[in-house]
Amino acid sequence: MAQAVHLSRLTPISFLERSAAAFPARLAIVDGERRLTWGALRERVRRLAVALQESGLEKGDRVAFLAPNTTELLEAHYGVPAAGGVLVAINTRLTADEVAYILSHSGARALVADGSLAHLADGAPVERVLTCGEDGDYEQFLASASDGEPEDRLESEDDTISINYTSGTTGRPKGVMYTYRGAYLNALAEAVHARLDSRSVYLWTLPMFHCNGWCFTWAVTAVGATHVCLRKVDPPLVWTLIEDERVTHLNGAPTVLVMLTSDSAAHRLERRVLVTTAGAPPPPAVIERTEALGFEINHVYGLTETYGPITICEWNPAWDELDVGERARLKARQGLCMLTADPVRVVDSELNDVPADGKTMGEVVMRGNNVMKGYFGDEAATAEAFRGGWFHSGDLAVMHSDGYVDLRDRAKDIIISGGENISTIEVERALVRHRDVLEAAVVAIPDEKWGERPKAFVTLRPGATITADELLAFSRETLAAFKVPSEVEFGELPKTSTGKIKKYELRERERARRAQLTSSPA
Amino acid sequence: MAQAVHLSRLTPISFLERSAAAFPARLAIVDGERRLTWGALRERVRRLAVALQESGLEKGDRVAFLAPNTTELLEAHYGVPAAGGVLVAINTRLTADEVAYILSHSGARALVADGSLAHLADGAPVERVLTCGEDGDYEQFLASASDGEPEDRLESEDDTISINYTSGTTGRPKGVMYTYRGAYLNALAEAVHARLDSRSVYLWTLPMFHCNGWCFTWAVTAVGATHVCLRKVDPPLVWTLIEDERVTHLNGAPTVLVMLTSDSAAHRLERRVLVTTAGAPPPPAVIERTEALGFEINHVYGLTETYGPITICEWNPAWDELDVGERARLKARQGLCMLTADPVRVVDSELNDVPADGKTMGEVVMRGNNVMKGYFGDEAATAEAFRGGWFHSGDLAVMHSDGYVDLRDRAKDIIISGGENISTIEVERALVRHRDVLEAAVVAIPDEKWGERPKAFVTLRPGATITADELLAFSRETLAAFKVPSEVEFGELPKTSTGKIKKYELRERERARRAQLTSSPA
Repeated sequence: MAQAVHLSRLTPISFLERSAAAFPARLAIVDGERRLTWGALRERVRRLAVALQESGLEKGDRVAFLAPNTTELLEAHYGVPAAGGVLVAINTRLTADEVAYILSHSGARALVADGSLAHLADGAPVERVLTCGEDGDYEQFLASASDGEPEDRLESEDDTISINYTSGTTGRPKGVMYTYRGAYLNALAEAVHARLDSRSVYLWTLPMFHCNGWCFTWAVTAVGATHVCLRKVDPPLVWTLIEDERVTHLNGAPTVLVMLTSDSAAHRLERRVLVTTAGAPPPPAVIERTEALGFEINHVYGLTETYGPITICEWNPAWDELDVGERARLKARQGLCMLTADPVRVVDSELNDVPADGKTMGEVVMRGNNVMKGYFGDEAATAEAFRGGWFHSGDLAVMHSDGYVDLRDRAKDIIISGGENISTIEVERALVRHRDVLEAAVVAIPDEKWGERPKAFVTLRPGATITADELLAFSRETLAAFKVPSEVEFGELPKTSTGKIKKYELRERERARRAQLTSSPA
Repeated sequence: MAQAVHLSRLTPISFLERSAAAFPARLAIVDGERRLTWGALRERVRRLAVALQESGLEKGDRVAFLAPNTTELLEAHYGVPAAGGVLVAINTRLTADEVAYILSHSGARALVADGSLAHLADGAPVERVLTCGEDGDYEQFLASASDGEPEDRLESEDDTISINYTSGTTGRPKGVMYTYRGAYLNALAEAVHARLDSRSVYLWTLPMFHCNGWCFTWAVTAVGATHVCLRKVDPPLVWTLIEDERVTHLNGAPTVLVMLTSDSAAHRLERRVLVTTAGAPPPPAVIERTEALGFEINHVYGLTETYGPITICEWNPAWDELDVGERARLKARQGLCMLTADPVRVVDSELNDVPADGKTMGEVVMRGNNVMKGYFGDEAATAEAFRGGWFHSGDLAVMHSDGYVDLRDRAKDIIISGGENISTIEVERALVRHRDVLEAAVVAIPDEKWGERPKAFVTLRPGATITADELLAFSRETLAAFKVPSEVEFGELPKTSTGKIKKYELRERERARRAQLTSSPA
């Protein structure tokens, strides 16, 4: 009987097959002037897979892509696995050295680079480089494919479909392996939570190279919605596309929301747009300002190691009655596991759950189908990350009595002052509540008496005139005295390509400044 | 590394766990006067599972339920598998003998019967009978459970979660085995296609004993929507509940739509209700009348062996422009595979695809995650059904050029007249187009010259005065002459408990009548 009954393996490639069958003539991709139907996209994907196999790609070989959010990078999410390869989508804002490290570490056989990034592909340690764009050879490569379907090389749904390198804010980036099964299940959960359907239009404000676009590369395709590509988060262009393409969904870190809502093109939406946000805990004030324009926010949380989002702050309709600030505060919590994920836990160093009291901090740990298979070529780091059978996020949080996780800090960001923990997120939120403040980042600075003290780096809105003392006085209204920053510095904040504030750079800058002060003659 | 990384098995029990965590105080079930929150439902399920284990249930033991759509039957979909048992939900309109056959064939150790059906449980061949309702002992059984969680006995996601007996219109019913994995994946697909979310309200017009309610027992729970129980499709009550409980979704065979739309309480809806319909190909006229009241129809198709629905007629927005009749005709097609299913095929007797010409008939065959594991205790029937590696539906269809399947007949219903195939569905549709016709069923009658000829059994709307000749003349407008029925008989149509017309009974009745005519003195 086992032989009689066929169980299909879970693979997101089936999503493209289905949408190409169901909606062959409907719009799959808008990419600048270019518009492709599902039928045309499927044909390009078939050609990519066949051409890769015909050029000698073998099962499990890595194929790297270095591109902004383009048609080519989207089709790579289907064509590379359809050929039996493993997709390595590389962060486009890395240096040539960093790119070379990832190519070399992943052992990629080929690199496909967008024309705009050709300089990063020079001398890349791969057998073959293909370039997209007018003068490139990628289209020729697709055209070289024979007729017929690629050979199916999927052996198990637990095969690796992609490797996503961590941003490597500390140390060398690690290669996070996703499986076909995990990608499939996470994509379905994203589709349900974002209420995607075949009439949705998804704008690519989130980089596809970031956790495979939180699996929206696959989720949007699963329902046959339209992908609208975007090379760069250019706020006026985003506002134009929202209207012109009738966008219904977009994703991004809270800083993307700040950019959009503070842009001069910002206006109240005529139709609701669902924004899924993650990447850093969104300050309640940012949620409030964004929703005031007619966006609806799904606040989710995750890491590269969890295929992007793994929790969602599910909204309780009873909260509709609360005032706007309280609503935003509740929505700023990270919430609970998404539909296809296992429940996440907040634990002490012995892997015991901390009390669900909203006060006791512990580390967020996860496991299940929406957690990576491991770090590529690094069994030691994998074993360390999964000690006790749970993936250790390095994020510190409290568990509320309603079972919602609320992040307090990255383990490495928390400030310990006079033996007390100070959550930098809490201090940042207290500052961003002020309407003159656009963004804030708080880091620890050394202090002789207290060990560490908080220092705030703050970006003000254009035209704001508030002084540091006034801002500190304002923060005292909601913060315990020992949490009020000892110093405030105004200016731009350094950010990663995915919009996360580089706190380690602020700490570095601070350390360098202090070293200089100490060594300078008094 | 394999040990470090935990892959969770797919089980729909996780949907209840998640909704109980996310929405503990929100309404899970409305069942007459009774209202239960997700927290309360989870506690009842825990008690059921623990009580079953404490009463000696072992892994894989069958537990039968005989109940209309009640809280108890819904909780059985979680409590029985949570105990490691296999749920056998029995059709409530069977005779005591038929129920006894299923109990005996499935080897059920226990039977839980609704008080209203206690007469069917008398002398049931099981170790223990529990009865729900005021004088029953089911609540006491739940109350007997110890504290703590049931022992987790799931070994593999391919374990059997339920056995659903076919209606057995010919021969003895067969026990169709569903797996945890199949139930989970089908439920997710249903949730996406029906656009269910946590604010949805689902009315149980479809029996839960029928393919586990097409897996909506699990799908509605997955998103934390509200289940509204219903003991019987009582059209005025349905109309009342739609308004009072703010119903957003319901499912049913086309006959349910006929009952609802022809009821005197029928009126234009204030809010759209999504109706998922299957069980028989809906005549375009029925679709048209239903949508005119503000329902939106998802037309799906499947069998008990495919967890209920496996295809959906995905709507192409280009069709919005067509006239209402043409739209209904397009929507009456069975369409293509649902999101988590494998593509279905229409094949000849050698398993070759028939041409996608909308004309060549073949058999619909399926395989994949949304197809049963096999028939319980019947390897021969399983092997026969899966010959060539594909499940043979026994349904005849054509494949259109756009890849949509369009059912023509059950293999056993098709009429062969003078060497030509006549699709009884096509003839029925031609009759139901007439506004005086409520429903029609066409079957073969023996004919000396042609071998077989179509005979129509027709139910007219109240007050209709059309004659048989007038109806035949009307049908000639759209049917080829050889397809026009040779006889018409007006009256009620015999139906199964799930609303399917019992064509075999019409054929039997006809055979008996003819035998009598032949043997009677002239």
